[in-house]
Amino acid sequence: MTQAAITAAILVIGDEILSGRTKDKNIGTIADYCTAIGIDLREVRIVPDEADRIVAAVNALRNDHTYLFTTGGIGPTHDDITADSVAAAFGVSIDVDPRARAMLLERHKPEDLNEARLRMARIPASADLIPNPVSKAPGFRIGNVFVMAGVPAIMQAMLDQIGPTLTTGAKVLSETIEAGNLPEGTYAGGLATIARAHEAVSIGSYPSMTPNGFANRVVVRGKDPEEVTRARDAVVALLDALREGADA
Amino acid sequence: MTQAAITAAILVIGDEILSGRTKDKNIGTIADYCTAIGIDLREVRIVPDEADRIVAAVNALRNDHTYLFTTGGIGPTHDDITADSVAAAFGVSIDVDPRARAMLLERHKPEDLNEARLRMARIPASADLIPNPVSKAPGFRIGNVFVMAGVPAIMQAMLDQIGPTLTTGAKVLSETIEAGNLPEGTYAGGLATIARAHEAVSIGSYPSMTPNGFANRVVVRGKDPEEVTRARDAVVALLDALREGADA
Repeated sequence: MTQAAITAAILVIGDEILSGRTKDKNIGTIADYCTAIGIDLREVRIVPDEADRIVAAVNALRNDHTYLFTTGGIGPTHDDITADSVAAAFGVSIDVDPRARAMLLERHKPEDLNEARLRMARIPASADLIPNPVSKAPGFRIGNVFVMAGVPAIMQAMLDQIGPTLTTGAKVLSETIEAGNLPEGTYAGGLATIARAHEAVSIGSYPSMTPNGFANRVVVRGKDPEEVTRARDAVVALLDALREGADA
Repeated sequence: MTQAAITAAILVIGDEILSGRTKDKNIGTIADYCTAIGIDLREVRIVPDEADRIVAAVNALRNDHTYLFTTGGIGPTHDDITADSVAAAFGVSIDVDPRARAMLLERHKPEDLNEARLRMARIPASADLIPNPVSKAPGFRIGNVFVMAGVPAIMQAMLDQIGPTLTTGAKVLSETIEAGNLPEGTYAGGLATIARAHEAVSIGSYPSMTPNGFANRVVVRGKDPEEVTRARDAVVALLDALREGADA
């Protein structure tokens, strides 16, 4: 429990997400991945394809967190400015990287490797490449920043490769207790008391709508298995007592 | 074209989004809504249920944009701290609001309006309420900040109500040109030339994966219908020329 928390942020880059044209799927994928391997995802930002906005967000998030994952903006078109912006954020030069060029040649004939496609081989100085098994154009890691594609299948393939290289913390254990149609307002008081008595865990209550009304869930999360179990048992006892009271 | 841009940001509040347990649907809904009514969504942030993080994000985003929309954290449980955090961000007091209490009484008997449920009637001083036709507990507007529920059906109902009160800008028109399986790398150079020649519009290229490989789209966006049409025609001509070249 004395282990320092490993934290992460996500920066999603792309006008198409902000306009609503494309619905992001990468945030949820990376969030699940971080939770599974014991990294606390602490913040997400979505910014447009504008260099000054990307530079400011990269620098804010890489300073505040153990890791920063970016998605989007590493293709061949003029609006793909992530690599150049990340180089600017780190104050390093950027040029066509021979290793990245070699990867592109696995997919494209040399005569098809035009200026636009070579944009995808522009990598900031000192960065390591993240191979792209789907369409070859690589992502890269520089410092604590991992720059990945926006296409979900490619992002997932890149994430699978960088996962084993990450330092991970104690895994967060999670217990979900179904409250069903028991109204949040009936158990919120008791839940607050349990939360105060079990400060090593975090307890959340999450309503969702179904055709039959609300379906509520309480989630207990923490890194110490015994603390999680104790808090879960207290929540189960609270909800059981309220159900018996409602039936009486 | 001299009209000042109306901009907006979204702040999503909730541990459950960052842990991956809940997949956000509100960002896409609000993004589509803003685009439809001529508001430029410029930034999104997701932060955990922690007062200092919420206060900092609210103040950064409300200062930078015409409007800030928040979702999540306005329920009855101890982890619902959005209203108190927004009051702190504005430096105003917060207490049970008689108007909000009256709304809750439309759903709950007076004897069921316990301390936890009354949390949902805590509204920062000077705020206007946003009625909640689904489950009565209201959202609120204070200054340029609109505080809404996280449950998508309730958020949508609140958004529909505040929409007509917003100042909107010139609507962004959008034309989508299907590039199909024409590789981005073949048209990226020509597209950059078109983008430079039509600076009043923004042009993006968006790949997606299908079972048959990439399916690419080019999107031209702008507020001047004639400029959008001219740029679209140029893109169509570029893609047609490349397809003829490929068939030749």
